Amino acid sequence: MNTTDLQKQLYIQIETALKELDLPSKPETLYQPYRYALDGGGKRIRPILTMLSCGICEGDPKNALPSALAIEILHNFTLVHDDIMDSADTRRGKPSVFKKWDENIAILSGDVMFAGAMQQLSFYGEDESFSKNEFAALYDIFLKATVTVCEGQALDMEFVDRQDVQLSEYIEMISGKTAALLSGSLEMGAIAAHASDIQRKEMHDLGMELGIAFQIQDDLLDAIADPEKFGKRPGGDIFEGKKTYLTILALERANEEQKTHIQKTLLDESPTEESVEKVLDIIDSLNVIEDVAAELNKRYEKAKELLAHFPDSEYKQELENLLIFLQNRDH
Amino acid sequence: MNTTDLQKQLYIQIETALKELDLPSKPETLYQPYRYALDGGGKRIRPILTMLSCGICEGDPKNALPSALAIEILHNFTLVHDDIMDSADTRRGKPSVFKKWDENIAILSGDVMFAGAMQQLSFYGEDESFSKNEFAALYDIFLKATVTVCEGQALDMEFVDRQDVQLSEYIEMISGKTAALLSGSLEMGAIAAHASDIQRKEMHDLGMELGIAFQIQDDLLDAIADPEKFGKRPGGDIFEGKKTYLTILALERANEEQKTHIQKTLLDESPTEESVEKVLDIIDSLNVIEDVAAELNKRYEKAKELLAHFPDSEYKQELENLLIFLQNRDH
Repeated sequence: MNTTDLQKQLYIQIETALKELDLPSKPETLYQPYRYALDGGGKRIRPILTMLSCGICEGDPKNALPSALAIEILHNFTLVHDDIMDSADTRRGKPSVFKKWDENIAILSGDVMFAGAMQQLSFYGEDESFSKNEFAALYDIFLKATVTVCEGQALDMEFVDRQDVQLSEYIEMISGKTAALLSGSLEMGAIAAHASDIQRKEMHDLGMELGIAFQIQDDLLDAIADPEKFGKRPGGDIFEGKKTYLTILALERANEEQKTHIQKTLLDESPTEESVEKVLDIIDSLNVIEDVAAELNKRYEKAKELLAHFPDSEYKQELENLLIFLQNRDH
Repeated sequence: MNTTDLQKQLYIQIETALKELDLPSKPETLYQPYRYALDGGGKRIRPILTMLSCGICEGDPKNALPSALAIEILHNFTLVHDDIMDSADTRRGKPSVFKKWDENIAILSGDVMFAGAMQQLSFYGEDESFSKNEFAALYDIFLKATVTVCEGQALDMEFVDRQDVQLSEYIEMISGKTAALLSGSLEMGAIAAHASDIQRKEMHDLGMELGIAFQIQDDLLDAIADPEKFGKRPGGDIFEGKKTYLTILALERANEEQKTHIQKTLLDESPTEESVEKVLDIIDSLNVIEDVAAELNKRYEKAKELLAHFPDSEYKQELENLLIFLQNRDH
């Protein structure tokens, strides 16, 4: 990513605040994994969005920092629990928490991270510039986003054993798993700027468009990206039997023979390269690639249109650049 | 328990409100376990305490209902996760959530219960009779209690592999695992009654005394209770190698030979009846039983003394009866 000074500056503020989080030293089995999970790196994209949104809504981004931290701790809590559920041994190149310690420790330290995330919001309870309504709204949005993330994860797990997932259900799943938290990040930043209800809703909607577009794009890149840049072979999701926006749309359009081939390949534990290649050919022949590209571009355009409603500022420019960068990414 | 009309009435209010909780029907793997965990019964002692505390502080117990529900959902969330950690196949005579479904579903539905518990508190954000400070205090207490429960559970798990647990550490562990939530239940009830800071603190302290006394008493009853009433053989904790207030105090007082015998018996996976009997004899010979009984009675008396500061009411009478009943329980 072409990181600008503003983005770097926000990133450093977030990293510093995370490092300075005053975690107890004991019980060690609770707080060492907590610290480890937070120190794992990552682009801190959600908290950066929170602070940008606050700036875009003409607030002081510093006021958004507690929300940004809450979001980032929450995000890392979900990763700690997700890694158990997905049996993912590594996370950002290091052992995942449940692998480095054990499942029980990962469950419990995840729980306390969730509580710790929310404790960040007490800043708005103490700071008198925030009304009771604003304070309540921050909790509501945060909790609603959390519930929606859990629902998305549950749907994702349910989809593994289902052969009849509809496109609308898939959108619901990625709305939960990815878009809800991005949307919450942006909306909370708006509240930290004392933004109007309309601005809050626009930031919320922008986050939904961005989140869904980003996820659909991931599915698309899996099929078409240059493997050297993308880091996975083309059709990696198909090799893994993962349902994606592309395969679900293709199944809706396919004839019986094509349908049978796609389903057989997805169910096959180790499909041949030829078989996966043929699925990609079917996807291509049914105009799925073009239509998915159009769908995600429509969503990015909608996000940019929403952003255009806000007054010009360095924060707005930064988010616009980010949207353009994401829209054009090829890996 | 000799349940009075008032207690029965509060119990029914809580059960009804739990039944009427508006949970979504989907994803099924998220909300069926949620519903199942809440429908599992239990005495609802914590939410009853919340509502009693509100009445004692001259508030309308109905205003405490959302706090009571938050506490009860939180409590059941911790049970869902604890059962995974303790590999407990049953809970109140029925399969535990992770056994009925699986671990992943239990982790995720527990997470969403935690979020759902907290969403109950939004009532106080909307209701204009509650100040921003009161609203903030409810979240603070709730989250602090949750963190302390997690810390208690972490200590408990750490103690399994440690032979040098001190009495002060054991008190810290049971303060977390049991007392923090009882204390939070009572303090939140006080806030729901718009009680003064002093009353809030008294309710908090009462809950700590009650919680610690109750837990120490459980340890004592394990050694001395009539097995027919208590439902376990005497020394059950010792058979299981569980550290208790009694064995930790006995170890502090024991000579080398006694110490060796106690530790050997606790580490033995299947100790003989004679060996356990001898540990109970050592405990008795070191005046541990009398001193522990005195300790818990002191705490119950302190709780009653704190309660005496409040004006007379049917709610106060009810909590007093409950304290006397608990103090005198023999199983």
